[in-house]
Amino acid sequence: LSASLVAVDWGTSSLRAARLGDGGQVLEERSAPRGILTVAPGEFPSVLQSLCGDWRDGGTPTLVSGMAGSRQGWQEAAYCACPAGADDLAGKLSWVEPGRTAIVPGLSCEHAGVPDVMRGEETQVFGALALLGRRDARIVLPGTHSKWVQVRAGRVESFATSMTGEVYALLRTHSILARMMPAEDAALDETAFLQGVSQAQAVGSLLATAFSARTLALFERMPAAALPSYLSGLVIGEELRAQAAVADGEVVIVAAPALAERYAMALRARGQRSVRLGAEATWRGLWQLACTGRIS
Amino acid sequence: LSASLVAVDWGTSSLRAARLGDGGQVLEERSAPRGILTVAPGEFPSVLQSLCGDWRDGGTPTLVSGMAGSRQGWQEAAYCACPAGADDLAGKLSWVEPGRTAIVPGLSCEHAGVPDVMRGEETQVFGALALLGRRDARIVLPGTHSKWVQVRAGRVESFATSMTGEVYALLRTHSILARMMPAEDAALDETAFLQGVSQAQAVGSLLATAFSARTLALFERMPAAALPSYLSGLVIGEELRAQAAVADGEVVIVAAPALAERYAMALRARGQRSVRLGAEATWRGLWQLACTGRIS
Repeated sequence: LSASLVAVDWGTSSLRAARLGDGGQVLEERSAPRGILTVAPGEFPSVLQSLCGDWRDGGTPTLVSGMAGSRQGWQEAAYCACPAGADDLAGKLSWVEPGRTAIVPGLSCEHAGVPDVMRGEETQVFGALALLGRRDARIVLPGTHSKWVQVRAGRVESFATSMTGEVYALLRTHSILARMMPAEDAALDETAFLQGVSQAQAVGSLLATAFSARTLALFERMPAAALPSYLSGLVIGEELRAQAAVADGEVVIVAAPALAERYAMALRARGQRSVRLGAEATWRGLWQLACTGRIS
Repeated sequence: LSASLVAVDWGTSSLRAARLGDGGQVLEERSAPRGILTVAPGEFPSVLQSLCGDWRDGGTPTLVSGMAGSRQGWQEAAYCACPAGADDLAGKLSWVEPGRTAIVPGLSCEHAGVPDVMRGEETQVFGALALLGRRDARIVLPGTHSKWVQVRAGRVESFATSMTGEVYALLRTHSILARMMPAEDAALDETAFLQGVSQAQAVGSLLATAFSARTLALFERMPAAALPSYLSGLVIGEELRAQAAVADGEVVIVAAPALAERYAMALRARGQRSVRLGAEATWRGLWQLACTGRIS
């Protein structure tokens, strides 16, 4: 099988690539622990070549999404201002190796004078729309900095960033709450997680709920092993309180399975339906943008 | 002048003491960097004696408030359950040196099955009430873990903890936001601070506002030097959104001057009045409790 596109997801902490066939199907995947933070300026072409140079020989074009397009990456790619569709992104590719390798631009939007940005998630959004065959959706891409995206008529109308994963990690590791918790997370305690979601919903501010992860342990109302799950529920519950309320209906979750399951559980507890997609959204998104930009 | 009480505020990171006269007036103050975290078990009496043994000779009683009464302190003192008045606290003193040295109990309360606690702030609350001559108040004690206290008819009816100071420090120092900021805080930038307060009010979740401290810098809408003030506004603004809304009228702020000024500014921006008190509330509180408990 000959490849039509080398699809690359180059993030802060990892580098993943897929060889896509004529219809966009994934023929092969590879990855390396070569996130952009590990790559010196000027070494991006050789790092990419060492991961998948064999796929690229013979002129197969390469399309890259993610933080490789940031100021600290290969080359700073533009931001497309919302509302933006796949045609806007495909029309603003940064050709870091002319005719051979391009980087997908990020998206920017603005709410009352405050800008917001994403890089990499825009590709997953268009992949999710293609996979689901939709032109309207409320999509969440959970993570260190979760993105909540509103899509109407095939275009990203607006989005908002929630620092959920990063705040969880800070509280879990560096705050006074960490002292009560085991060093390693056990499997998710669903009861404790949902108690956190419910508490977040009832109180309405993470600053006001977080201390309860200490006092519940202090008063022996919750075992130490359940505290990380409870805190996760507090933080994800706070995110949903602020963001998911906008979505009357279904939320599309694009994340790795374990994280997607937490969001689905929390949404269910709020009476909201969800659909889940994983890594396939990235490859499909790169394929969609390559087709739209006629580069494969 | 002979002392009637040696008043001691023994917290996590510092030890402060005052010699109080017959009417509770402060005759002399001393402090040492001997917070409870620096004191080994069993060494509390000698550390106290080395700071103010001369004041204690001759039988002047000593009353201690703060984290010295925690599990990691001199001896674990009880929590009084809310609603609680000065008489409840004075009736539950922990006599660590019988007839000579007592520790003030903390307060606990409960909201829908979730407990909350304070230790040290209860003393400041009763001091503030005495200094202001009030029996009803909404009081905030800002800090690492801010306490919002509802007082009715001279008793603490309930309170809530907001992890404001700790979350600010985590975001300021350990998050991605820190990368954009100068290592040291400059003087408060009032405009940026109030912009943060206003943003917190408009958006309604710190998870959703925090990322703006990055994007405003990224888009060169705010200079790096103003970012810590903006973030402080976001965090304090979030605290007020969740807590101060309960207070229709005036809020009593008990804090060191610079921090009290931030809270007063933020409250003013919300159209709320405030009154400020500082360290004098601690000494007056210890005096009040000593009088109520007839130990001086």
